Amino acid sequence: MNIKQWQERLAAFAAERDWDQFHSPKNLSSALVVEAAELLEQFQWLTQEGSRAEYLSDKTRSAIEQEIADVGIYLLRLCDILDVDLEGAIEKKLEINAEKYPVELAKGNAVKYSDR
Amino acid sequence: MNIKQWQERLAAFAAERDWDQFHSPKNLSSALVVEAAELLEQFQWLTQEGSRAEYLSDKTRSAIEQEIADVGIYLLRLCDILDVDLEGAIEKKLEINAEKYPVELAKGNAVKYSDR
Amino acid sequence: MNIKQWQERLAAFAAERDWDQFHSPKNLSSALVVEAAELLEQFQWLTQEGSRAEYLSDKTRSAIEQEIADVGIYLLRLCDILDVDLEGAIEKKLEINAEKYPVELAKGNAVKYSDR
Amino acid sequence: MNIKQWQERLAAFAAERDWDQFHSPKNLSSALVVEAAELLEQFQWLTQEGSRAEYLSDKTRSAIEQEIADVGIYLLRLCDILDVDLEGAIEKKLEINAEKYPVELAKGNAVKYSDR
Repeated sequence: MNIKQWQERLAAFAAERDWDQFHSPKNLSSALVVEAAELLEQFQWLTQEGSRAEYLSDKTRSAIEQEIADVGIYLLRLCDILDVDLEGAIEKKLEINAEKYPVELAKGNAVKYSDR
Repeated sequence: MNIKQWQERLAAFAAERDWDQFHSPKNLSSALVVEAAELLEQFQWLTQEGSRAEYLSDKTRSAIEQEIADVGIYLLRLCDILDVDLEGAIEKKLEINAEKYPVELAKGNAVKYSDR
Repeated sequence: MNIKQWQERLAAFAAERDWDQFHSPKNLSSALVVEAAELLEQFQWLTQEGSRAEYLSDKTRSAIEQEIADVGIYLLRLCDILDVDLEGAIEKKLEINAEKYPVELAKGNAVKYSDR
Repeated sequence: MNIKQWQERLAAFAAERDWDQFHSPKNLSSALVVEAAELLEQFQWLTQEGSRAEYLSDKTRSAIEQEIADVGIYLLRLCDILDVDLEGAIEKKLEINAEKYPVELAKGNAVKYSDR
């Protein structure tokens, strides 16, 4: 399924439940943060090494997949409501990032070079 | 581009900059929350009505698109690192949600019926 | 109890459980965001009016108080670990905010005047 | 200053700027998450060890103190608006936590014993 098709499916899911009244951009962006934080919660006490796929229990992995899905769902829904072209937005952002973090200056450093 | 192709592109972007050392699932999920919160920041003082597309200034809209892109980028990156099939995860979550929020009980109510 | 006394109590609570190993500033700030998001979750589908104290059910109010407490606990704990004087930091921030949002320019507008 | 006095000062700061209209519990809890995420941003690419006080630059430390202050300000403001007794709420939460994480079962484990 492409993004458009996913969005139609999610819109139908919400419409059937009369949830459009709740799905303002303000509320959807709140819900997105809440789900992203639930995802982070799965990792919050782990070491970086311990957060890698090979160390996660099946139970944790399944919880992570559900939280990832929730983030994806609200992100797609928000883009639909705001009429944002997600792939176009990522494309544009990558160009901005390529300028902000040029390979020669960003190498091995996660902080924008001008903020160091 | 499909999800796989986006992920390869984002992986190459990170690898060129030696950022793999920073991109543990723990760190990527932190970054995801941070970007989702920056998105929320655009809406935090607006009314729900005022958060709708037609009331946003060009400047705000452009900021929103950039934050949405950042959320999308970290979400794709995290799925890649953890080898999570994003579409499969959304598919599964929708089935769970359909059970948790049956149309007849969820109608017009955003809270899970058993929590009311 | 003053802040110092609360911090000693929370430090003892963590030490008894051997939790110091988990309480790095990085982890505590993750936990703080997670709890703040759980607090937001209580309000995410409400209208602004409906989020006011007089409209909250006893159940919701009790959940809110618990999330507020969690945010407070991690904030105090983080200040302790980083040796940040919370009252001093607020004092300083209020001076910065007074300059950033002078009364005559900020009146009725939540956005920093120079960002409008 | 005690909590009540801080809250009066923050209430006056908001009232002078006509910000009461923005300070619904819903909006304040959004702002709280946004500030908590800005705090997390300071630590997001650091290792746990590297997030400790002794490794932070003066610039980072100053940014952290400001974000901590912002979290504190919105937390106090939210408690004021909702008439929540912050110290009482923490007291109650510590009792709940003591039951949820009994010393003998929680020792060296950050996850609630019944979730393991």
